[in-house]
Amino acid sequence: MPNSFGTLFTITTWGESHGAAIGVVIDGCPPGLPITAAEIQIELDRRRPGQSDIVTPRKEADAVEILSGTYEGRTTGTPISLVVRNTDQRPAAYDEMKDKYRPSHADFTYEAKYGLRDPRGGGRSSARETIGRVAAGAIARKILATRGVELRAFITRIHDVAIPADALAPDALPTLAAIEATPVRCPHPATAVAMIERIKAVRSEGDSVGGVIQCRVRGLPAGLGEPVFDRLEADLAKAMLSLPATKGFEIGSGFAGTLLRGSEHNDAFTVRDGRVRTATNHSGGVQGGISNGEDLVFNVAFKPTATILQKQQTVDTHGQPAELMGKGRHDPCVVPRAVPIVEAMAALVLLDHWMRHAAQNQTFTF
Amino acid sequence: MPNSFGTLFTITTWGESHGAAIGVVIDGCPPGLPITAAEIQIELDRRRPGQSDIVTPRKEADAVEILSGTYEGRTTGTPISLVVRNTDQRPAAYDEMKDKYRPSHADFTYEAKYGLRDPRGGGRSSARETIGRVAAGAIARKILATRGVELRAFITRIHDVAIPADALAPDALPTLAAIEATPVRCPHPATAVAMIERIKAVRSEGDSVGGVIQCRVRGLPAGLGEPVFDRLEADLAKAMLSLPATKGFEIGSGFAGTLLRGSEHNDAFTVRDGRVRTATNHSGGVQGGISNGEDLVFNVAFKPTATILQKQQTVDTHGQPAELMGKGRHDPCVVPRAVPIVEAMAALVLLDHWMRHAAQNQTFTF
Amino acid sequence: MPNSFGTLFTITTWGESHGAAIGVVIDGCPPGLPITAAEIQIELDRRRPGQSDIVTPRKEADAVEILSGTYEGRTTGTPISLVVRNTDQRPAAYDEMKDKYRPSHADFTYEAKYGLRDPRGGGRSSARETIGRVAAGAIARKILATRGVELRAFITRIHDVAIPADALAPDALPTLAAIEATPVRCPHPATAVAMIERIKAVRSEGDSVGGVIQCRVRGLPAGLGEPVFDRLEADLAKAMLSLPATKGFEIGSGFAGTLLRGSEHNDAFTVRDGRVRTATNHSGGVQGGISNGEDLVFNVAFKPTATILQKQQTVDTHGQPAELMGKGRHDPCVVPRAVPIVEAMAALVLLDHWMRHAAQNQTFTF
Amino acid sequence: MPNSFGTLFTITTWGESHGAAIGVVIDGCPPGLPITAAEIQIELDRRRPGQSDIVTPRKEADAVEILSGTYEGRTTGTPISLVVRNTDQRPAAYDEMKDKYRPSHADFTYEAKYGLRDPRGGGRSSARETIGRVAAGAIARKILATRGVELRAFITRIHDVAIPADALAPDALPTLAAIEATPVRCPHPATAVAMIERIKAVRSEGDSVGGVIQCRVRGLPAGLGEPVFDRLEADLAKAMLSLPATKGFEIGSGFAGTLLRGSEHNDAFTVRDGRVRTATNHSGGVQGGISNGEDLVFNVAFKPTATILQKQQTVDTHGQPAELMGKGRHDPCVVPRAVPIVEAMAALVLLDHWMRHAAQNQTFTF
Repeated sequence: MPNSFGTLFTITTWGESHGAAIGVVIDGCPPGLPITAAEIQIELDRRRPGQSDIVTPRKEADAVEILSGTYEGRTTGTPISLVVRNTDQRPAAYDEMKDKYRPSHADFTYEAKYGLRDPRGGGRSSARETIGRVAAGAIARKILATRGVELRAFITRIHDVAIPADALAPDALPTLAAIEATPVRCPHPATAVAMIERIKAVRSEGDSVGGVIQCRVRGLPAGLGEPVFDRLEADLAKAMLSLPATKGFEIGSGFAGTLLRGSEHNDAFTVRDGRVRTATNHSGGVQGGISNGEDLVFNVAFKPTATILQKQQTVDTHGQPAELMGKGRHDPCVVPRAVPIVEAMAALVLLDHWMRHAAQNQTFTF
Repeated sequence: MPNSFGTLFTITTWGESHGAAIGVVIDGCPPGLPITAAEIQIELDRRRPGQSDIVTPRKEADAVEILSGTYEGRTTGTPISLVVRNTDQRPAAYDEMKDKYRPSHADFTYEAKYGLRDPRGGGRSSARETIGRVAAGAIARKILATRGVELRAFITRIHDVAIPADALAPDALPTLAAIEATPVRCPHPATAVAMIERIKAVRSEGDSVGGVIQCRVRGLPAGLGEPVFDRLEADLAKAMLSLPATKGFEIGSGFAGTLLRGSEHNDAFTVRDGRVRTATNHSGGVQGGISNGEDLVFNVAFKPTATILQKQQTVDTHGQPAELMGKGRHDPCVVPRAVPIVEAMAALVLLDHWMRHAAQNQTFTF
Repeated sequence: MPNSFGTLFTITTWGESHGAAIGVVIDGCPPGLPITAAEIQIELDRRRPGQSDIVTPRKEADAVEILSGTYEGRTTGTPISLVVRNTDQRPAAYDEMKDKYRPSHADFTYEAKYGLRDPRGGGRSSARETIGRVAAGAIARKILATRGVELRAFITRIHDVAIPADALAPDALPTLAAIEATPVRCPHPATAVAMIERIKAVRSEGDSVGGVIQCRVRGLPAGLGEPVFDRLEADLAKAMLSLPATKGFEIGSGFAGTLLRGSEHNDAFTVRDGRVRTATNHSGGVQGGISNGEDLVFNVAFKPTATILQKQQTVDTHGQPAELMGKGRHDPCVVPRAVPIVEAMAALVLLDHWMRHAAQNQTFTF
Repeated sequence: MPNSFGTLFTITTWGESHGAAIGVVIDGCPPGLPITAAEIQIELDRRRPGQSDIVTPRKEADAVEILSGTYEGRTTGTPISLVVRNTDQRPAAYDEMKDKYRPSHADFTYEAKYGLRDPRGGGRSSARETIGRVAAGAIARKILATRGVELRAFITRIHDVAIPADALAPDALPTLAAIEATPVRCPHPATAVAMIERIKAVRSEGDSVGGVIQCRVRGLPAGLGEPVFDRLEADLAKAMLSLPATKGFEIGSGFAGTLLRGSEHNDAFTVRDGRVRTATNHSGGVQGGISNGEDLVFNVAFKPTATILQKQQTVDTHGQPAELMGKGRHDPCVVPRAVPIVEAMAALVLLDHWMRHAAQNQTFTF
C-alpha cells in the first residue's frame, strides 16, 4: 500500500491538489481519545498557505471535516476519515506544465511510471498531500502528549543563514512560543529576522531557497524502536525522506559525527535523577535502533523549491527542447511550512513504535 | 515483522552473533534464476572479518549454505533459506558486558525494551546480522545485473581524510577493480593510502573512526519508486539507517544542496542519446520519489565504532557507576566492510521497487 | 491495518452506517483504466436497500462520488477515493440498542473490545460497510473482464429451499440475466419463486432466514495463488468470512467431498481444446493453492439475519437481564443483496493475486 | 511475503520436503518466555509420520533445533529460528512425477506458476511444510496457556464414520487424553474404533479418505478480533484453508445454521457466573468478528489424500495423455496427523489477535 504509512497506527492519504478533495484515513487509533476537528485544524493552520508574507499567498482555508471514527467527541477505534475540500484552484495556471516537464519536479517521472499523469498542480507530489499527514499527526501527538512527550521542530538554517553554533544548547527544548514567534519558525530571534530577509530577497529575484529543520523530542521512554530493519532512526529517516523536497536526514551527531573519534563520540553512561542517562547525546536519543530515554534529535534537509519564476530549459512531452517560464503562486521557501509536517511525521513514527513495543513487550509477562 | 524488509522481494534475517548460526529467508524471488552458493559467497567474503589488516582479525569463514528454494541450480520461486554457522566464538571476551552497559552500544536499550538480553556479542545489534542482508543482496544484484544495472559503493571519507572535491566526476562510475584495489575501498589511490594510515594510527591508540560511503547506481529505468511514502529515496534512507553505526543519509545534493538557490539546484531537462536526460544531477536520480533514469547517487554517514580499547565511564545493570575497559578483536573502522552491505541494501530496495512497479504498471494495459 | 484488504490492489474502507459518509480508498490500481462513477454505481445499485420487495425498504440512494485518482476519465495509478454520503438516517430507531446488547449482533463484543461504541446502526459491523467493497470490486472486475474473466455469484439455497441437485450442471455458468431475472438472484426460475415465497412468509412472522451463495469464476489463467499461506482458497475464505453474517466457506467439493474416496475425488488430467484440463472439478479450480485454469467454484454460508421483529431475551449494558423488541426496517434475508458483495470480494482477491503473480513470475525471465 | 503469516506474532516457513531442511522463523515473540526444544518436539511428534499404524510408515525423526532467539532457556524477543533436517529421502520414489502431473496435486499448477518446479516430494506443497507451523504453534499455545486458554482439535468424522450427533455436548471440551487415546484422535471411543477400521480398509484397497476436524477453544477473553476484514473467523478461515488438503471451513452453526430461522439461531444474552454469557452458541464464540468469551468452535473439511496406490489417468509435461501408478509411502488419511496442525494454526491466529488487541486498546487509556 504505497500510500499508507505505519504498522499499527496507520494512515492512508489520498487526493490530488486539484481534485475534489484531499484526505486521510487513520486506522488503528486507540479508542476513547477526545478529539475535535478544531484541534486538528490548529495543526493544519500551521502548514496552510497564506499564513504569512513569506509563503505562497494562495488562499486555502483547508477546513477539515471528520467523516467517521468518532462518536460523541471520542475516537471509537474504527477508521477516522478526514477530508479537506480543495478550493482556490486555478488550473489555468498549470496549462503550460501539461506539455512540458518542469525541472526537478515529478512531471517526467510520473509519466515514466504511470504512462499518464494529472498535470494539475503536480498530482500526488503536491505539498497538499501532506495535509493528511498533518491532520493524522495532530491526533498522534495528542496521544503522545498524554504520556508527557513533547515534539518541537524548528528551522536551524535557511540557505546559509543559520542559528549560531553556540546559540542553542544541545539539551535545550525551544518553546512553541519561541518557534511560532516569527513566520520562519526559528527560535533564535536574530537569526529569524535574517532568514526572513533572505527569503524575501530571493523571492524578489524569482528564485527560491531551502534549509534545514531540526526536530527534538523530549519525554520518550527508553525501549521504543526495533533492533534491525525498523530501527527508530530508520523509520524516522523514511518518514522524513518521504516528504516533498527533502534530500537528507541525520540523527544525533549525523554527518558531522564522522569527524569525531570513538573516544569523543561515545556517550558515557551516568546516573542522573535516579535513572540511567548519558553524559552527552551524540547518539541523538537512539542506540541500536531503540530509544534510550534521552532527547531524540534529528535534522532534515530541504532543497530549494523547484518552482521558480525564471526562464528554465526543459523538454516537452514530445521530447523536444522547450523553455518554461514559471508562473503561479508558490513558496519561495517551503521550509517554514514544513515544520509542522516534520513534527507530524515524527509523531506518527513514535506513536506507532510505542504501540508496537507495548504489543510485544508489555502484553504478556512470564 | 520487525526483522523483515521489502514488499515483494523480501528478506527476513535471524540470528545472534554468538548463537548457533545466522541466516536469512528470501521470499518472493523470481523463479528460474541460476544461482550458486559460490556466487553468494563472493559478496560475503567482501564483508567478512579478517579480510585485511585494517579490519578485525577475527577469523570467521562465514560459509553460506543454501537450505531451500533452489533446484538444479535455479531458484524455484519458493523461500530461499541461507544459513551461516557461527564459529570462532569467544564468549569469555564478553563477560564484562554482561553486567555493564557499553557506551553507545545497544546493551542498555535492549534491556529497556525486552527486559532481558543476550549479552554475547551484542545479540541482534551485532554487525553479523548483516550477513543475511549481503547474502540476499547478492541474489538481488544478480537479477538487476541481467537488466544492466550496476551498483558501486565506495568510501569517500574516513574521519577527515576525503577524496578531493574535484577528483571524482559527478557522472563517473568507479570500477569494481578500482574500489577493491585497496582494503579501504576508496577508488582514489592517494586518498586510499591516507585513509589506511589514519585507520592504523587510530587503532594503535585503541580508538576508532567513522566515515562516509557513497553509492552510485547506473542503468536504472525511469519509473521506479512511489510518489508518497515509499519514495525511492525514503526506502533507501530507511535501508541505510537500518544498518548498524549509521547516522545520516543524503541523496543527490543532500545537505549541501540547501546552500544552493532553486535556479542553481534545478536539473534542466535536455535530450541526450535520444532520450530525456537532465543536464545536472542534483536530484541524485530521483524526482518526486521516482527514478528518472539518471545515476542514483547517495551518501551514508557511519559513526566511529563504539567499541574502543580505552577505559570508559558507564553504569552497570544495577544502576551503579562503573568503568569499562574494551577488550576483544574489533574493527577500528567498520566503514570498509560496510561497502558491500550498502550495495546489498541498495540492491534489495531497487529490485523490490522494480517488481512493485511492474506489478502495478506493466501487468495490465488498457 | 485492520480495515484494509489486499497486498497490491488494496482497499481501505471507513465509515459507520450513521456517520456522515461511508467510503473506500483503493491503492495500487493500474493506471489508464477508463472508469466512471456511473459504472461503479451499477454494482452499488445491486446491493442497495429498497431495490425490491424482499429486502429492507430503507431508501438509500448510495450515490458514489469519485474524489481522487482519476483524470479525464482514466485511473492515474494514485489512490482512488470513493465516498457515499449517508442519508435516511433514523437514529431514533436505534435508541433501544444504546443500552441493550442485541443478540447475535456486535454490540457486546464491540464494547468488550473498545470500551465504547457507536450504537447508531451497528457502527462498522453494519452491512453498509460493504459499500466500499462493492465500489472497489467494480473496478477490479472491470480490469479482470479485460482479460476475459467472468464472475457469477448466485443463490443456491434460501433456508431449505434449494436448486435441485441436477438442475445446474457442474460446468455451467449462469448468465447475469438469469441471475438478475428475479430479486432473489437464483438462476433457476422455479426455485427462485419458492425462495421469494419463503422470504415473504418468514418476514410476515417477524423472523429471518439465511442461505448459501455459490460463486463461479470462468476464464482465470492457471498460476494464480500461492503455495502456502496465501493460497487462493485461503484468501477467498478470508474474504468471504470477512463479510457480515457469514458462517462458512467451501471450495470445490467442500464438506461433501469428505464423503468421497481419493479414487473418486481426484480430478484426472486430460487434454481438451489443446490445453491441459481436468475431467472433473472437485478441486474447484485450485490445486495446491494455485489456480489450474478450471472454473473456480466456491460456496458461502449466510446465517439468518440477526435483527428480527420479535421479543428477545438479552442483557443491558449494566449487566441486567432485559427484553428487546426489534424495530426498524431490516432485511428478512440479506442473501440476495450479498450476491454482488461476494462477487466484489472475489474480484478483489483474484486481481490482487494476478498482480502478485505477475510481479514475481513475469517481471524477470532468465 | 507469501510464506509468512501473522501481523505481530509472525511466522515465515521455508523448505521443501526433499531439500536439506525445513524450518520456520518466528518474529515478534514476547521476550522472557521459558521454552525448550523438547517442548516444541512434543507437538512435532504429534504430527510426525510413522507415529501409528494408520499413517504413513515413513520414518522421520523431525528433531527440531533452536538456532536463535533464546538465551538461557528464555525467548529474547528476537527472531526464533527453528530448523528440522530432512532425512529418509527417497527421491527415486518420485521419479515418475517428474514427467507426469499427479492428479489433484500441485504439480501442474506449480509449473504453470513458476515455469519450473522441484518434483521431489511436492516441493512446498508437501505436508512437511507444516512442521514449521506446528513448531511455532507450540510456542504460541504455551503463551496462550499462561492466560488459561485451552485448545482442543479432534476428528468428528472420517469418510462417513462420524461421532453420533448427541454424543458430544455443544459445550463440552474433550480432554487431551481422550483425544490422544487412539491414533485417530477422535474422543468418542466407539467411533474411533470404526474410523480406524475404515482407514485400514481403504488403505488395503490402495485408496484414501478424508474427514472433518473440529476445534474448540476455551478461555478466550471477549474482545479479540477485528470488525471488518480481519474478523477472527476470517483469519481462522484463512489459516485453515491454507493447510494442505482442506476444502472447507465453518464456524459455529456453519452451513447447517442456514437451515435455522433467526429466532432459532440468535444466541440470547444472559448473565451467568457474574458475567455476560450467551444461552446458546450458534455464533461459535465470535460476533461481529470479535470473540465474545464463549467457546470458539469451528470445523475444517479435509479431502481424501490425493496420493492413491491405483492407476490414474493424467497428462505428462509434454501435454500427452499418460497413466500414473502411485507408489511410495503415503497416508491413506491425513486427518489424524492434521489435528495438531489445526491447533497450531488456531493458536497462531489467536495469539496474534491478542497482541493486536492489546496494542490498540490497552496501551493507552484516556
